[in-house]
Amino acid sequence: MFRTPVLELYHSTRQFINVIPEVLKNPASNPLTASNMSRPSGLIANKGLELLTFGTPNGHKASIILEELKEAYGKPDYTFQSISIMENIQKEKWFTDLGPNGRIPVLVDHDKGKLPIMEGAAILSYLTRHYDPEHNFSFTSDPELSECEQWVAWQHGGLGPMQGQANHFYRLAKERIPYPTQRYVGETERLYGILDSRLATREYIVGNKYSIADIANFSWVNVAYFAGVQLHDFPNLYKWWERINSRPAVQKGCAVPSESQIVNKRYQERLKEEPEFKQKEDELAEIGRKAKEQYGYKYSSP
Amino acid sequence: MFRTPVLELYHSTRQFINVIPEVLKNPASNPLTASNMSRPSGLIANKGLELLTFGTPNGHKASIILEELKEAYGKPDYTFQSISIMENIQKEKWFTDLGPNGRIPVLVDHDKGKLPIMEGAAILSYLTRHYDPEHNFSFTSDPELSECEQWVAWQHGGLGPMQGQANHFYRLAKERIPYPTQRYVGETERLYGILDSRLATREYIVGNKYSIADIANFSWVNVAYFAGVQLHDFPNLYKWWERINSRPAVQKGCAVPSESQIVNKRYQERLKEEPEFKQKEDELAEIGRKAKEQYGYKYSSP
Repeated sequence: MFRTPVLELYHSTRQFINVIPEVLKNPASNPLTASNMSRPSGLIANKGLELLTFGTPNGHKASIILEELKEAYGKPDYTFQSISIMENIQKEKWFTDLGPNGRIPVLVDHDKGKLPIMEGAAILSYLTRHYDPEHNFSFTSDPELSECEQWVAWQHGGLGPMQGQANHFYRLAKERIPYPTQRYVGETERLYGILDSRLATREYIVGNKYSIADIANFSWVNVAYFAGVQLHDFPNLYKWWERINSRPAVQKGCAVPSESQIVNKRYQERLKEEPEFKQKEDELAEIGRKAKEQYGYKYSSP
Repeated sequence: MFRTPVLELYHSTRQFINVIPEVLKNPASNPLTASNMSRPSGLIANKGLELLTFGTPNGHKASIILEELKEAYGKPDYTFQSISIMENIQKEKWFTDLGPNGRIPVLVDHDKGKLPIMEGAAILSYLTRHYDPEHNFSFTSDPELSECEQWVAWQHGGLGPMQGQANHFYRLAKERIPYPTQRYVGETERLYGILDSRLATREYIVGNKYSIADIANFSWVNVAYFAGVQLHDFPNLYKWWERINSRPAVQKGCAVPSESQIVNKRYQERLKEEPEFKQKEDELAEIGRKAKEQYGYKYSSP
């Protein structure tokens, strides 16, 4: 859908060769992967917005809202660079001068004195403050304004960090250690349960309107399986995920900086298509199950 | 300083017996502990603000800003209840109806339709929006407004959750497991290093003004030792901690709902006064040191 031969004409986001106008107009449609880019070493734009990002939930938060704003208003234009966290580009000085925490995403607003903005919640707030004049994705007054802040913060301080730790212990760490595995997979399930309850009587998380509260939470729910959490176990949340996932701008945002291989939809496909993939996933699930059993884990929410 | 005999006249925050006007005017000066209160079972106020809290870093964030606002403006008045997390009061239905995540703090604004507000970052934002008209602790425009949002979010999504995990593995969990211990103590040190660098050339975190960015981060830095982190190793951060800690409203806020036993200052006193306490702390530090050694941990920031 987003990967077309013409896009391969890019050598990097910093070096264009014979690119067609459509692609120039919409750099976010370019599914560059880290492997076909030269190593980023500084900012590449001098006007508009520039997003330093990677294909992770926190990166997608920023690219989804940017794509939603573009779809609603035809702007802002933005450039992006793929910052490969496997190569630790986010730890290089030019990057940490902009985002001192050494983490993606970082947004730079060239039109506002080259202001750098780190932290997903702050990026969502900044972008809607300046680029969502009709408040299509944000709120102007309480209680909705506060409720939106609450659920963005809930994701930023709870769902994100805890699901991130579940990713680490369930899948990424060299060792499989039972206690932290069941701790973080269990906490992630608890948090999913809270969203599931909230969505039993609502289509969207706040104020019956699609907003940055949905975008923030979607980005993590969209990679549930990676943390060993079965999204199907949370029926209201699953329906909400389908609803958000069907939005064209969400699909575009999740293809920045390149089409994501870790989102739930792709995962379901691979489970069906690749027996070896399924076997490895089943092995991880069994280790996770045993870790829960060993520590007498019992799902409860909250 | 905050514990006087007259305050013992309280039976609970819901039941006053013969209290003096001074105490009624300033409920935050009441050092009630969980043990001398009857079990909270619902809201107790019907006007003003009501804070459901406990003596933890996240609780102190809310009570410090409330005390700062009171000191600056003489209002808002607020009532508080001690929600003992040891007794899981925050998991009871009356509480989760207000704060569905089942965590303290939750603030309720009785004057705004009994609006409940969960999540520290959202509470700081809400309180300054409505009760800081002269922006003594907040900002009105970018870049400072965004920078404040960024450093509040950085605490809310990074320092808080990661130091919380360090607390768990360094001290609270039944088992001492080396890998997660060094992971989280190490990550907390990395984060302290980032604040330390930022504070090398600044008195306050954002805009050369004391703000909610300082309050949010102070609340966690104020319990550094609990996570096995030596604040003295971060000289700029230490000086900043002393600066913030010397503010009367900060001291008052840290005494809500009762005088805190886990803050750095009290810790330093206990190390000197109680040999047994020091011995236990040394044992934990040794386990932490070995965990780092086992995994080849090396401090680096970012």
